[in-house]
Amino acid sequence: MRSTMMQTPLLISRILQHGATVHGDSEVVTWTGAEAGARHTPYAEVGRQAARLAHALRDDLGVTGDERVGTLMWNNAEHLIAYLAVPSMGAVLHTLNLRLFPEQLIYIANHAEDRVVIVDSTLIPLLAGVLPHLSTIRHIVVVGDGDVSKLQKDGVDVHRWDTLLAGKSDVYDWPAVDENDAAALCYTSGTTGNPKGVAYSHRSIYLHSMEVCMAESFGLGPKVRDLCIVPMFHAMAWGLPYAALMSGASLIMPDRFLQAAPLAQMIAAEKPTFAGAVPTIFTDLLAYLDANPTDTSSLKEVVIGGSACPPALMHAFSERHGIEVIHAWGMTEMSPLGSVAREPVGVEGPEAWAYRYTQGRIPAGVEGRIVGPAGEVMPNDGKAVGELQVRGPWITAQYIGEDGPDPEKFEDGWLRTGDVGTLSPNGFLTLTDRAKDVIKSGGEWISSVDLENALMAHPAVLEACVVGVPDDKWGERPLATIVLKEGATADAGKLREFLGDKVARWQLPERWSFIEAVPKTSVGKFDKKRVRASYADGGLEVVQING
Amino acid sequence: MRSTMMQTPLLISRILQHGATVHGDSEVVTWTGAEAGARHTPYAEVGRQAARLAHALRDDLGVTGDERVGTLMWNNAEHLIAYLAVPSMGAVLHTLNLRLFPEQLIYIANHAEDRVVIVDSTLIPLLAGVLPHLSTIRHIVVVGDGDVSKLQKDGVDVHRWDTLLAGKSDVYDWPAVDENDAAALCYTSGTTGNPKGVAYSHRSIYLHSMEVCMAESFGLGPKVRDLCIVPMFHAMAWGLPYAALMSGASLIMPDRFLQAAPLAQMIAAEKPTFAGAVPTIFTDLLAYLDANPTDTSSLKEVVIGGSACPPALMHAFSERHGIEVIHAWGMTEMSPLGSVAREPVGVEGPEAWAYRYTQGRIPAGVEGRIVGPAGEVMPNDGKAVGELQVRGPWITAQYIGEDGPDPEKFEDGWLRTGDVGTLSPNGFLTLTDRAKDVIKSGGEWISSVDLENALMAHPAVLEACVVGVPDDKWGERPLATIVLKEGATADAGKLREFLGDKVARWQLPERWSFIEAVPKTSVGKFDKKRVRASYADGGLEVVQING
Repeated sequence: MRSTMMQTPLLISRILQHGATVHGDSEVVTWTGAEAGARHTPYAEVGRQAARLAHALRDDLGVTGDERVGTLMWNNAEHLIAYLAVPSMGAVLHTLNLRLFPEQLIYIANHAEDRVVIVDSTLIPLLAGVLPHLSTIRHIVVVGDGDVSKLQKDGVDVHRWDTLLAGKSDVYDWPAVDENDAAALCYTSGTTGNPKGVAYSHRSIYLHSMEVCMAESFGLGPKVRDLCIVPMFHAMAWGLPYAALMSGASLIMPDRFLQAAPLAQMIAAEKPTFAGAVPTIFTDLLAYLDANPTDTSSLKEVVIGGSACPPALMHAFSERHGIEVIHAWGMTEMSPLGSVAREPVGVEGPEAWAYRYTQGRIPAGVEGRIVGPAGEVMPNDGKAVGELQVRGPWITAQYIGEDGPDPEKFEDGWLRTGDVGTLSPNGFLTLTDRAKDVIKSGGEWISSVDLENALMAHPAVLEACVVGVPDDKWGERPLATIVLKEGATADAGKLREFLGDKVARWQLPERWSFIEAVPKTSVGKFDKKRVRASYADGGLEVVQING
Repeated sequence: MRSTMMQTPLLISRILQHGATVHGDSEVVTWTGAEAGARHTPYAEVGRQAARLAHALRDDLGVTGDERVGTLMWNNAEHLIAYLAVPSMGAVLHTLNLRLFPEQLIYIANHAEDRVVIVDSTLIPLLAGVLPHLSTIRHIVVVGDGDVSKLQKDGVDVHRWDTLLAGKSDVYDWPAVDENDAAALCYTSGTTGNPKGVAYSHRSIYLHSMEVCMAESFGLGPKVRDLCIVPMFHAMAWGLPYAALMSGASLIMPDRFLQAAPLAQMIAAEKPTFAGAVPTIFTDLLAYLDANPTDTSSLKEVVIGGSACPPALMHAFSERHGIEVIHAWGMTEMSPLGSVAREPVGVEGPEAWAYRYTQGRIPAGVEGRIVGPAGEVMPNDGKAVGELQVRGPWITAQYIGEDGPDPEKFEDGWLRTGDVGTLSPNGFLTLTDRAKDVIKSGGEWISSVDLENALMAHPAVLEACVVGVPDDKWGERPLATIVLKEGATADAGKLREFLGDKVARWQLPERWSFIEAVPKTSVGKFDKKRVRASYADGGLEVVQING
């Protein structure tokens, strides 16, 4: 029996029109530096400028159909206008990550076949550097003043945002596109190989925006003022810009002023109630606020994602500044919202904090399962450890331009997250390892992170890096590489004994190596690939102890 | 460009599975009377019983495909289980409104071709009375003890819920139905003609449930305990049952105990934080709480819908009991959520209250327009008065069994709400009249309700009922029928003068009639049809005054 309901599609243009009318008095605030303060743009004006931008793209730049329009921009009002106008007119927004290496930027702009790039004038040097290699670009739109003489390439026209939009109509007849058409592209900054792209649909963005507004997630609504620190070129700024227009929350955009001092100034001046950011920025902000008393009383809740937040940071913000840090987890492939760590009802104190340290609870739109070393689906009992797989209406089914789902990343309609951990009966995720760093020993998995944490609790140990190495009998076994504190002494036998009551007996490493320093990646993480390579090359002195 | 996102359908079975696992500790509480107190059923158990019910319906009762399963039930755990199991198995839930006249009940059960009816044993007399006329019923499932001997009809088997579910499997392989398939039916209790049915889809219910959980709407989440007074046979209890499973909110169900005393007892015992109800029940509850001090401190917010809430009631709850009454508006045809009256950010005091008296603000999922007397679309300026038309993904496009949209109820893909009022630039609806009660005078509309309210503010007037009557020159003109307070005197000239500075001059009635009492409908509303008929028959003594 077919329903009688209207087949109204879920479109970005609906979010735009609703935000620009019903919430026309809500605003996007763009920070412009310590002296100039902020620019305030009501959503009614955002709506008018979005119409003007769409006319300019279509009439002056010839953007038709689903052509890609790239943005190389900070978080600001113009980026928000592009977020709304480009998909609403039926074209596809491609947010270019300005932190990528130049080769990666070139790769993704060419792979997506970007025809237009909108660029903040402060980022002209970055664009100029890669421009000779961008093969599909025909137009550059520059936002703000600044010298454009470096942007020279045959066949590429350079425009000024203000000139382009001047005199254009304030209204645009947004087309009725298919809700499953692509609305926006985002490429992952994978550590190996070329970046891989995801094409979000109007439907997926609309549903994800509703989720962001749900009370269990971020609870966006007209009374929220969201300090949107998470970059708009990073996983669609967690969907906060679209959710803001949908719900009437105001946005406070830091533009390029991402240091602790200007962020503190923004908080005092613009009174955000909510913020979203990666942990490093909030580590700096905590130190700044501790040293420079600032009125942060408006700010009640900060969602931290991107990587796990140190518990000490969560407690410090709560106790010293009355700001609750809420953990969230997700992936570019997931739009990105996967889970939010709010403790269940009825728990308090240390138990509540234990829930808040997890990656969080999955919403109805995200289904999760734990898959073990042999490919078996394991129970969601909070104990069985395996790779997390997810599916749902805002999760990608494959990457752009690939013939179908790559079996290394997708399985039976599920996305393989590459993260290893547990899923509790009440839906809380605890992720401990990247799948590639887990040690596969005799059909069981050993968490390298658990072993490292246990070892680093020993008073003599400065750093411990555990990797899996080949073993004839078990397939893989853990190798513990240890950096001792200056002047401290400990041997492999003592450390193994120390681990005895902390991990299962079969997980205890037999191979130990004492080293000067753990090799690190460019972002300061343990470089386990190099540790494994040193072992394979015989470059490590290894002590063998069997139980 | 097609998106790369998963085509995961939006299904009731997903809501059920999520609620029964991730929120398995949340619960539905069923009130069973003053002595017995409450039954507590965790959502994990709701999930198990939903599986058992689906097996019983399929294996024992032979329900296949999209057959209709009716419910004639109060708000309780078993009704919730049916809400979830029936659509999840691919069948269609039909909530039978136990307040309909028997002829209407018979009409809708036959029109929907209900094959099964699940009935609370306390409602057996009602079902027994109509059973001889139900032509498609093959099975009756009785919940609870009670004499079933009255339920006799050839070809109809009678089952007990407990016996039927006993021994069935706790798990069910819910089918992957199409998200646009019908999930549930609800018939309007129209005042004229036969009731008309709406077939909600899985998609529309899923989207509507997300809206109910959004912070701007009812903000359901794991910390909410919802006293669900609005009947589950009335516009799907405003979607609260599905939203509760989706978000982990607990439900407190009053069953048949809808009087003020047991409701107060439930609030004190089960600590709801939120409630949804029609105004009459809360009028009684206010009187009870004023006379019988009760601990209602858990209850922070009550959403009132179904008809406009008297401002005095809203103020009394806020000031005397710390309970905020929030106005909401909707229709069976709208799933039903159309608007929620939370004041915009930054307004306070009388201005905030003025916003809270309106029907509320429309969300992104509901688009509204105002259409004037000549069919012209009018501005959303808060001034232009016309009929409200709406469209969106949880609004019906037509009624069940009709060849297409009835032009009296639908226009160009919009639902004609039959309500007349204004829509402000910031999305607030103010509905003043039913379209059929508006007076169409010379191409302009006159609000009968505005005239009535202005007249009833006169100290001599007890009741004023204004209707449109035929006029040769203007098409229609207002007739004011007045009931004076005992002992009071006033004449038409004085009353017309009194109106002079309250409504536009051209709206002033020329026709006046002083009567003993305004005829009322069975639910106590002015019966304007009878007033118009009396006038037409010459049964009213009319004074004519021209300006």
